[in-house]
Amino acid sequence: MKRKPFLPTTLGLAAAALIMGLSLPVQSANDEPIQPLQPAKVTDPAKVELGKKLWFDPRLSRSGFISCNSCHNLSMGGSDNVAASIGDRWQKGGINSPTVLNSGLSIAQFWDGRAKDLAAQAGGPIANPIEMASTHDAAVATLQSIPGYVKEFKSVYKVDAIDIQQVTDALAAFEATLVTPNSRFDQWLKGDKKAITDVELKGYQLFKSSGCVACHNGPAVGGTMFMKMGVVEEYKTNHPAEGRSAVTGNAIDRFTFKVPTLRNVELTYPYFHDGAAKTLTEAVDIMGRLQLGRVYSKEENAQIVAFLKTLTGDQPKITLPILPVSSDATPRPDPFAPIVVPGKK
Amino acid sequence: MKRKPFLPTTLGLAAAALIMGLSLPVQSANDEPIQPLQPAKVTDPAKVELGKKLWFDPRLSRSGFISCNSCHNLSMGGSDNVAASIGDRWQKGGINSPTVLNSGLSIAQFWDGRAKDLAAQAGGPIANPIEMASTHDAAVATLQSIPGYVKEFKSVYKVDAIDIQQVTDALAAFEATLVTPNSRFDQWLKGDKKAITDVELKGYQLFKSSGCVACHNGPAVGGTMFMKMGVVEEYKTNHPAEGRSAVTGNAIDRFTFKVPTLRNVELTYPYFHDGAAKTLTEAVDIMGRLQLGRVYSKEENAQIVAFLKTLTGDQPKITLPILPVSSDATPRPDPFAPIVVPGKK
Repeated sequence: MKRKPFLPTTLGLAAAALIMGLSLPVQSANDEPIQPLQPAKVTDPAKVELGKKLWFDPRLSRSGFISCNSCHNLSMGGSDNVAASIGDRWQKGGINSPTVLNSGLSIAQFWDGRAKDLAAQAGGPIANPIEMASTHDAAVATLQSIPGYVKEFKSVYKVDAIDIQQVTDALAAFEATLVTPNSRFDQWLKGDKKAITDVELKGYQLFKSSGCVACHNGPAVGGTMFMKMGVVEEYKTNHPAEGRSAVTGNAIDRFTFKVPTLRNVELTYPYFHDGAAKTLTEAVDIMGRLQLGRVYSKEENAQIVAFLKTLTGDQPKITLPILPVSSDATPRPDPFAPIVVPGKK
Repeated sequence: MKRKPFLPTTLGLAAAALIMGLSLPVQSANDEPIQPLQPAKVTDPAKVELGKKLWFDPRLSRSGFISCNSCHNLSMGGSDNVAASIGDRWQKGGINSPTVLNSGLSIAQFWDGRAKDLAAQAGGPIANPIEMASTHDAAVATLQSIPGYVKEFKSVYKVDAIDIQQVTDALAAFEATLVTPNSRFDQWLKGDKKAITDVELKGYQLFKSSGCVACHNGPAVGGTMFMKMGVVEEYKTNHPAEGRSAVTGNAIDRFTFKVPTLRNVELTYPYFHDGAAKTLTEAVDIMGRLQLGRVYSKEENAQIVAFLKTLTGDQPKITLPILPVSSDATPRPDPFAPIVVPGKK
């Protein structure tokens, strides 16, 4: 069969574009250490919707004031943009709140990787006395007192009695949808060579050639490994976090943290586990010196920062949930109640 | 011209429905002291969108943690469901946080009516040291450092320099859209006699005949006047709020508060300016005795509560805004910084 070049069909246009050197999206970028993010696949929308309600529900906290979204604010890159989060009674959080966006792509959860997956993580803050400061029993009892939740858990999990595993499972299902595809860098990876500027491309090349990509790789540009903070030069901080040694018990893991994702990094300031770096410029400078033994010039630093800003993707479009109303039996929180220590008078 | 009855046109169907005793929405309910809520008319969508961003932006607070939505949570009836709100450094709020829903219909803002309209109100919490604890200057300086906001204010207000009047104007424009039409009671008012049950109707009749409606009237079922809390019997409370006398300076206004809207009242527990009534049952009982000198039977109380629950309307459908990203020049809040008192060392 004879081929007609430049046939005005989809195939013909694609062929023409390739011949003419135009860029077209392609599905793979096998030669790059960073891969495009894939959009979330929602297989159980009712579970995701339930998880979204739980995500925004401050009744999971002792005070009735703090929800998951308080410290992983989906209006602000899934983070809270302060060095240490604010917890129950304004207690200072132990570590910089990592973004929830694309967190399902990480090998483990929390900075020290102590939770194996999103569901294992989700139970942590609810019961952490300096975070949401509730207990799993209290949180479940509250949900069980709310007819709208009882109905939804029954519909999703086929149960009458809610338990914490269902709560964390639903939260994890919602969190797994919080991916941010279609960044300008992903468009470039997929073949649109005009999606990033020359300066941004230079930044990416430097990001690769100077070694950043050794740790920050994969679709999330991080989250694939643990690494010591301060490989070449010691990281000086007064912050008490010990990192992975607190999980493994091995002294060698001291100051080893999960490599954070750099997706949407422009939105998730301040940086590092202690939130000490206030700007991307500062973070790139410190990372270069401490991890790679490299002092970037002002121009190089600006190029890498410019590249990092191309990693901001489409933020999840969230319709604010209307939470199921409490019943008369739902505990009424008193955020200002004196702390009762069991066994003490 | 000869008329063909039951002609299948809109007019004909309406006529047929009326003849057959079916209910159809009508635009007026002139014989009732409560009128249906009208949907919001958005005349300047760009201003409303800007106001929505400001509403959800915790950078308007000293800590970077508290936004308008923290205490007027649109997932929970525009309130926070605690007796006293949590402010900067977990300070206890001075009064129960009123719902923002339908608040534009009130004669004045705040429980004591000290702000004449939504815009006058909006500046209050930002600068209140026990609420958001910022200053108007600091809030404006933060916004001015954020290029996305500068662009939006320029587009909406044709200015380069943001000022607090524009901030509160945009917030008020957003708040004015937060109305909740189409409650079952409104459907009933508009002619759908099956929209409420017999018990709910009895509750409404009792609400009228026993005098609740003397204060709770108009489209918002409240918000039309100030009234003393404790008309027949004294209201006993340790709460320090004095009510309208703090505004007028007149002793006679002591314990006089704006009559709150009862729209969505099922969602906005706890009740009264001090949040002392935890359930609608309790609130109806106290109101009956203190304001009307009437002790409702258990059945009567339940009827009124059933009626009140028909006042829950369609909640505003809000797409969570993605906030404009801070620049390197944007102040980085420290929620845990020591309080600096000017002039003190």
